Amino acid sequence: MKLQIYSNRLSQPCRAILIFCKLHGIEFEEINISIAKGQHFTPEYKVINPMGKLPAIVHGNYKLFESHAILIYLACSFPGVADHWYPSDIQERAKIHSVLDWHHSNLRQGEVHYVWNRTLKPLFGGKLDLEAAAVDEKLLSKSLAKIENFWLKGDGKFLLGNFQPSIADLSLVCEIMQLQIVPESDRNRILSPYKKVLQWIEDTRKATNPYFDEIHSFVLELKSVLTTDSSVGVNEETKQRSQAVLSKL
Amino acid sequence: MKLQIYSNRLSQPCRAILIFCKLHGIEFEEINISIAKGQHFTPEYKVINPMGKLPAIVHGNYKLFESHAILIYLACSFPGVADHWYPSDIQERAKIHSVLDWHHSNLRQGEVHYVWNRTLKPLFGGKLDLEAAAVDEKLLSKSLAKIENFWLKGDGKFLLGNFQPSIADLSLVCEIMQLQIVPESDRNRILSPYKKVLQWIEDTRKATNPYFDEIHSFVLELKSVLTTDSSVGVNEETKQRSQAVLSKL
Repeated sequence: MKLQIYSNRLSQPCRAILIFCKLHGIEFEEINISIAKGQHFTPEYKVINPMGKLPAIVHGNYKLFESHAILIYLACSFPGVADHWYPSDIQERAKIHSVLDWHHSNLRQGEVHYVWNRTLKPLFGGKLDLEAAAVDEKLLSKSLAKIENFWLKGDGKFLLGNFQPSIADLSLVCEIMQLQIVPESDRNRILSPYKKVLQWIEDTRKATNPYFDEIHSFVLELKSVLTTDSSVGVNEETKQRSQAVLSKL
Repeated sequence: MKLQIYSNRLSQPCRAILIFCKLHGIEFEEINISIAKGQHFTPEYKVINPMGKLPAIVHGNYKLFESHAILIYLACSFPGVADHWYPSDIQERAKIHSVLDWHHSNLRQGEVHYVWNRTLKPLFGGKLDLEAAAVDEKLLSKSLAKIENFWLKGDGKFLLGNFQPSIADLSLVCEIMQLQIVPESDRNRILSPYKKVLQWIEDTRKATNPYFDEIHSFVLELKSVLTTDSSVGVNEETKQRSQAVLSKL
């Protein structure tokens, strides 16, 4: 039975899994769960993932959620995944776990809440909360600084100084790519101090293309319909255009 | 070279690692890092863990932080750890990863912030924030409900319906044990609706004793000096007594 991926391309952990599968020739069926329509809260979806979150996979009779757990499962279950994606060496593997665990409480917390309060909230019936976004931005920037000054130390282009990407590079870069949908001036303010981070995003993109660009095309489409005027936020017109994009999912 | 564990027994992830090592006869040197004295922020400690967080380990020339990554590393590196703690079967292992990943953004977020705002803050120079604690309690209670109704489903006593504990049981139970230091009326209100959770805490304690009780003795000592009057919070006298306990670390 083909792998089923319950996904929405607005979700950065979903994108990481889709890119990983395409890159490794893992055949899958992509089942779009509309966030705009609240399909992740339906009883049918709760059978797949009782937490009501995306992504989740079904592989035969086996169900799994949480994107890092899924990436590790895919790397270990399917043939042909090069060792650098999830090293078999215990010490190297533990370092990947360390990055992934760190991600949860740092980059992810900062980024998800920042983008929600700065841009996404009005698309789901709420109001922008720039005060909360300013708080979120601090954790986001602190996390980017840690990537710049610690995780990207060493000779290699990738996290932990590695010369080849791992699932941690893919997960964290997909997270940062969510910033494409915030106003350009905000994105530039947040990302531009971190030159190594910017180069690493590009290196990870190159290492996973054409799938990286293919899977991120929706994010860029959404970006194109959102205002770039950070002083105005999302107005009614852009909201409607954005919802038209969301409704395509 | 003996394993070094940089630790503070006020920290629940530290306790999980200390219990795991003692239970498996892993020899280690416990290096106490005083949180009260800010030793986790010193340049010396930043060499061990640049994030300034506890726990961290040094094993020969190898350094590692993030408690889940450390538990997995220990389970895979030292002989004599029974398979149920971290199963070699790819699907069973992935389920453990799923629990641990879920923990980061749910139980841990709710518990850490709740205990901080409800009890710990005055011990570190801040003020109780009962309004914030009320918000944190919602995520904490939601997480406990998920453990009760989803993670503890099945025939076994432990998470995922397992008949033997895993590193996930140890990590999550140590997290919940932090509630020992909040006022009794609050702890009872939060925990008493979850009968399976209460039984599972006791089962995990029994499965890891005498080390569970030994490592948690500091938490119970701290509990004894904190007020049980939830309407008053921490007054000056209990604050001084608490600081005396903290200073012992």
